[in-house]
Amino acid sequence: MELEFIDWLARRVPAHPLLRVGIGDDAAQLGTTGDTLVTVDMLNDGVDFDLRRDAPRRIGRKALAVNLSDIAAMAGRPTAAVVSLALPREGGLELARELYAGLLPLAESYQVALAGGDTNSWDGPLAISITLLGSVTPRGALVRSGARPGDRILVTGQFGGSILGRHFDFEPRVAEALTLHDAYELHAGIDVSDGLSLDTSRIARASGCGAVLDLDRIPVSVAAGELARQDGRTPLAHALSDGEDFELVLAVGPAEARRMLADQPLGIPLTEIGEFVQESGLWSRDASGSLAPLEPAGYQHELR
Amino acid sequence: MELEFIDWLARRVPAHPLLRVGIGDDAAQLGTTGDTLVTVDMLNDGVDFDLRRDAPRRIGRKALAVNLSDIAAMAGRPTAAVVSLALPREGGLELARELYAGLLPLAESYQVALAGGDTNSWDGPLAISITLLGSVTPRGALVRSGARPGDRILVTGQFGGSILGRHFDFEPRVAEALTLHDAYELHAGIDVSDGLSLDTSRIARASGCGAVLDLDRIPVSVAAGELARQDGRTPLAHALSDGEDFELVLAVGPAEARRMLADQPLGIPLTEIGEFVQESGLWSRDASGSLAPLEPAGYQHELR
Repeated sequence: MELEFIDWLARRVPAHPLLRVGIGDDAAQLGTTGDTLVTVDMLNDGVDFDLRRDAPRRIGRKALAVNLSDIAAMAGRPTAAVVSLALPREGGLELARELYAGLLPLAESYQVALAGGDTNSWDGPLAISITLLGSVTPRGALVRSGARPGDRILVTGQFGGSILGRHFDFEPRVAEALTLHDAYELHAGIDVSDGLSLDTSRIARASGCGAVLDLDRIPVSVAAGELARQDGRTPLAHALSDGEDFELVLAVGPAEARRMLADQPLGIPLTEIGEFVQESGLWSRDASGSLAPLEPAGYQHELR
Repeated sequence: MELEFIDWLARRVPAHPLLRVGIGDDAAQLGTTGDTLVTVDMLNDGVDFDLRRDAPRRIGRKALAVNLSDIAAMAGRPTAAVVSLALPREGGLELARELYAGLLPLAESYQVALAGGDTNSWDGPLAISITLLGSVTPRGALVRSGARPGDRILVTGQFGGSILGRHFDFEPRVAEALTLHDAYELHAGIDVSDGLSLDTSRIARASGCGAVLDLDRIPVSVAAGELARQDGRTPLAHALSDGEDFELVLAVGPAEARRMLADQPLGIPLTEIGEFVQESGLWSRDASGSLAPLEPAGYQHELR
């Protein structure tokens, strides 16, 4: 959601006794005990995919996977999904079947109940919106606003170049978030949907602090290197600003961070890439330790 | 959802311990105690409204109201909603504000928490999808499948001609359903979204029985009469087949039905229009008592 619009909306949405975490986080947290998570993501032809090029099964899978990633960002357990489809009139039935053929196996592997849907034909292009519910574990929901100055910034996996294929086929970090949230004390978290630097700055902003990224420690994906060879930008620039990595960025106290890095409890690498600091803003730090302002970069949702 | 596709999907969606009522009813019923309801409805430009003609505030209001009607059909209490928007690029921000200006007051009047959304721009027309959560009252959810032969068919309000305006400005029967479900023993219920005869036949089909409609007892709206004057069909034909009345159709035992009709506990009329019978199918009964097969008519969702 575009920032100006989020702010406009947030001012107009009245407080509600059910709503513990609302507009602006990865998922909303509901219920008098805050035990239900709900998140929605819509993918649209020509923006999030191109139906002339991309297989409907991959699109269907991704439409659920991005929502699973939002529940992972809150360290929740996904429970049930509903799907709404706006299908082009011609070939809509076959398209719907293919979309479901992509999303049903993913739902099953994450034990998500497919609870219903609304399937429509129209003269417009394909739009698919999935709402995913989740439940909070006994440790509570992981939110964006809990980072404290001195916390280390830990990330899962590698960054950049997901457009070459991983943005469809990524594995949402649901299991990883549950494992970490259960075994360690995490202060804050987010999933990288719009870009590592942009999403890290969102934790900082929500937590009322700043963030320093150690540029030489960013795990850069092989795909970021490939993309850099194609477009002349650096692999690091891609890692910092490309969207749809769907990895986790976590804020963790220094001692806990050391323990996590030594344990490496996941099947994928956990890497320290910087720290949260008192002074607001986003900063880069090079190998010599000198700081420079870093413009948060990534996918900016436009609304005119 | 088109029937063939529902059937296709229902065969492929595995049973899930969370899911008590799933695809095919008005809302799904979730949770080990079945206490959460979830429903989704998507409205699309050129199908459910025409942005060149209809005010965005009415569209936004309707997008929530149709979901409220689905929760009413289950006699649930609406709790929280998430909204996804696909907005045309030009003027999208202003359009989003107007849609919300229509839906926020309705959310507030039904104490629905607006829990989040996904707001997107694209080159396609306007699509708006709302997922609404609800909670089941201690009496449990009202479902389609509970009608028994001999049950009376009771309806709220009047039918037909909603296209002249009521399909935007209707009041979802949330309070009415809660009142009736609390004070009386209801066997089954549905909201009329596609047409009185079609939706009544859905209760019959889900309950494994048939339904007889007394044609001279159908409450025909003034709008159905107006529409009949315009197109030469009868007001009754409109009442039986027009979509989007968003009134309730209920199955109630004979003694309980008499009590409800005598009490008239709602601010709107409650009318008996027929009964459920052993023999499957939909039947009409005229004033002389003779039966004839009645083709279920209404809005049929097409998917090719």
